Amino acid sequence: MPAVDTEAFLRDLYELRAIGTFKTGVHRPTYSPQDMEARRWLMAKLTACGLEASIDGIGNVYGRHPGPGPHLLVGSHIESQNEAGWLDGALGVVAGIALARAGLPVDVCAFADEEGHFSLSLPGSRSMIGDLTEEAIDGARNRTDGTPLREALRAAGLEGLPRRQLEIGRYKGYYEMHIEQGTQLEEAGLRLGVVTGIVAIWQWRIVVEGQQDHAGGTTMAERKDAGLSAVRLLAAIDAEFPRLVGERTTWTTGRFRLEPDAPNIIPGRAEILFQFRDVSVAVLERLEAGLKSLVQEANRRERCKITLSSVSKAVPALCDPAMMQALSDAAEAIAPGAWQTMPSGAGHDAQVIARTMPASMLFVPSIGGISHHWSEDTKDEDLALGIQVLHGAAERFLAG
Amino acid sequence: MPAVDTEAFLRDLYELRAIGTFKTGVHRPTYSPQDMEARRWLMAKLTACGLEASIDGIGNVYGRHPGPGPHLLVGSHIESQNEAGWLDGALGVVAGIALARAGLPVDVCAFADEEGHFSLSLPGSRSMIGDLTEEAIDGARNRTDGTPLREALRAAGLEGLPRRQLEIGRYKGYYEMHIEQGTQLEEAGLRLGVVTGIVAIWQWRIVVEGQQDHAGGTTMAERKDAGLSAVRLLAAIDAEFPRLVGERTTWTTGRFRLEPDAPNIIPGRAEILFQFRDVSVAVLERLEAGLKSLVQEANRRERCKITLSSVSKAVPALCDPAMMQALSDAAEAIAPGAWQTMPSGAGHDAQVIARTMPASMLFVPSIGGISHHWSEDTKDEDLALGIQVLHGAAERFLAG
Repeated sequence: MPAVDTEAFLRDLYELRAIGTFKTGVHRPTYSPQDMEARRWLMAKLTACGLEASIDGIGNVYGRHPGPGPHLLVGSHIESQNEAGWLDGALGVVAGIALARAGLPVDVCAFADEEGHFSLSLPGSRSMIGDLTEEAIDGARNRTDGTPLREALRAAGLEGLPRRQLEIGRYKGYYEMHIEQGTQLEEAGLRLGVVTGIVAIWQWRIVVEGQQDHAGGTTMAERKDAGLSAVRLLAAIDAEFPRLVGERTTWTTGRFRLEPDAPNIIPGRAEILFQFRDVSVAVLERLEAGLKSLVQEANRRERCKITLSSVSKAVPALCDPAMMQALSDAAEAIAPGAWQTMPSGAGHDAQVIARTMPASMLFVPSIGGISHHWSEDTKDEDLALGIQVLHGAAERFLAG
Repeated sequence: MPAVDTEAFLRDLYELRAIGTFKTGVHRPTYSPQDMEARRWLMAKLTACGLEASIDGIGNVYGRHPGPGPHLLVGSHIESQNEAGWLDGALGVVAGIALARAGLPVDVCAFADEEGHFSLSLPGSRSMIGDLTEEAIDGARNRTDGTPLREALRAAGLEGLPRRQLEIGRYKGYYEMHIEQGTQLEEAGLRLGVVTGIVAIWQWRIVVEGQQDHAGGTTMAERKDAGLSAVRLLAAIDAEFPRLVGERTTWTTGRFRLEPDAPNIIPGRAEILFQFRDVSVAVLERLEAGLKSLVQEANRRERCKITLSSVSKAVPALCDPAMMQALSDAAEAIAPGAWQTMPSGAGHDAQVIARTMPASMLFVPSIGGISHHWSEDTKDEDLALGIQVLHGAAERFLAG
């Protein structure tokens, strides 16, 4: 078995970075021309490594190893957030290419729209395990511009293609290599993270309905200011959530929009996308109850009507002990003392795949913890170390 | 002297409502094709009433009475907010047409962009009194889409036209008729408001700079969440401002934008447009000091950098006593007991014109207090009563 070709791995990453370049990062929103160019690039790469490459009706790119098993599945996603980094997702897919090139019995998959440009959660990996209905696709829209998913699939030339599902018995397990998207490794002076579990994200939409009015003619006593009621609710969450959360819980208001969003007009409507993440279902349920109480109290106190609705509720995923052990052993062999175990605060396709087979993840450091921004980066030597450890772990786990 | 033709006045208003119709309102943003169509419509109307009509280099439409004075200036604006009401501005301009048609020695002006689609405050009326530099025009941009004002003027065919200035000695005073944009008249069961003064608007931009990061990988302790710091500042304003304000002060956050405004990303930047309004300079200065203190405290407490900058500071305007008396006398003669005096909470071109000549305003009720929304409306009989009272006041004031 040849060793993994680190230089070819880095060259692949840099080639992919050149597709949809934005400053030092990339702009490859799902199904955009740049994203489709990247998918075609990937199919050519997979073919060159001896895999049977195809793209399916949701945009999943799949490379099938033609030889005998037991097989590993290796992958991640290839689209990016808007004007974001070059490694998020791409790293795990290109790692799959590297293991295939090294001759391991590996299938590679780039799961479509992990980044959630459309109003579905992890549609590519869910489609692969048979957990995505045609009706869900019918109803999905682009979160930024409202384009129906069906229309985007048609424009990308994917309409009418069958959607592929994984042959579950085919795989011994799934490995996903990813950037950390935090500063824990960097701050601890470490170079590798063996992931113990993936937090679940519970997403919520909060809509505040008030009365749009002129900001001068309408006295303070007359107003139903949707923006103000929204600010008060978010301030209450900021004050109350610390009493409810677990040790590693995160909670975030990523989107806050006013209508009509004009300087001289009292906002008639506000829309908030709020989320929290944790590895413990008990904590998640406690936070849900707390959020509902705060909204209930806001509806008692405010003049505006506030509606809370669930956007998505994922299940936390624990990583497979044997796959983690293979990663830990390979890490200790190649970079003794330079690794740790840690949870993943971000969601990944691995949490979906983990519902059907053993799954595990390997993290490499993010410089400054930055991701989802074009300045996201990881040192070449950390990328190289990562692929060596992943290769070693894959060999160990397949042999185990 | 013929009486005012109420039917022709209402007919004009309905004709203008048909230009850029949106639901029951209009969409005529400044210099849009619909807006320019309305300006051409106005020039034809002014010409038909015997005025010498012209448009100038900022888009002001002006109709000059050819006969001897003393003259009155009557006007308002003709563009609308986006998808907004049919009467805001249009009413005062069409009232000018009606007085001219009735034979009064009236010049009519539609001041450009009172609605502030571009990053200037009341540019049309300020240009008319010589308070708008070429440099200010060079630097102005559309607040919604960033189009430079120069580009918009060129596209509208206004590039290179001279800008007109008022001949100050020509006028005995300025009358502006407008919808109330509040519910004070409606709630008191009254039909007319004689305006005592116009509040000044002090506009502020608040920029919060944090660090854009992934909402899962970045622990709460690591974050610099610009959206959260913005929410805390707005909550502090909500808590503290009631201690500082005057009896009729209003304060409003009309715009609140996050970047990148995506569910899974910690906002790296927030931008707020905040304003307060009062008739008292002492109160305005107290609020400015209070706002600066709150921003200073936020910069001490928060991890993000918060910058406060002044967008515009208008001067409160008091209405002319003799012009108010003429309005009050006409109102009492035509609709005894159905009127009151009141301040204007909204800014108007009258506050600019009042710097160079006596000025006064007449309000008619807004149904439900709604304005800056397509459902804005006023009963036809209130519009008709308004033009009769304005006509009577103009006759009285010219004769006085």
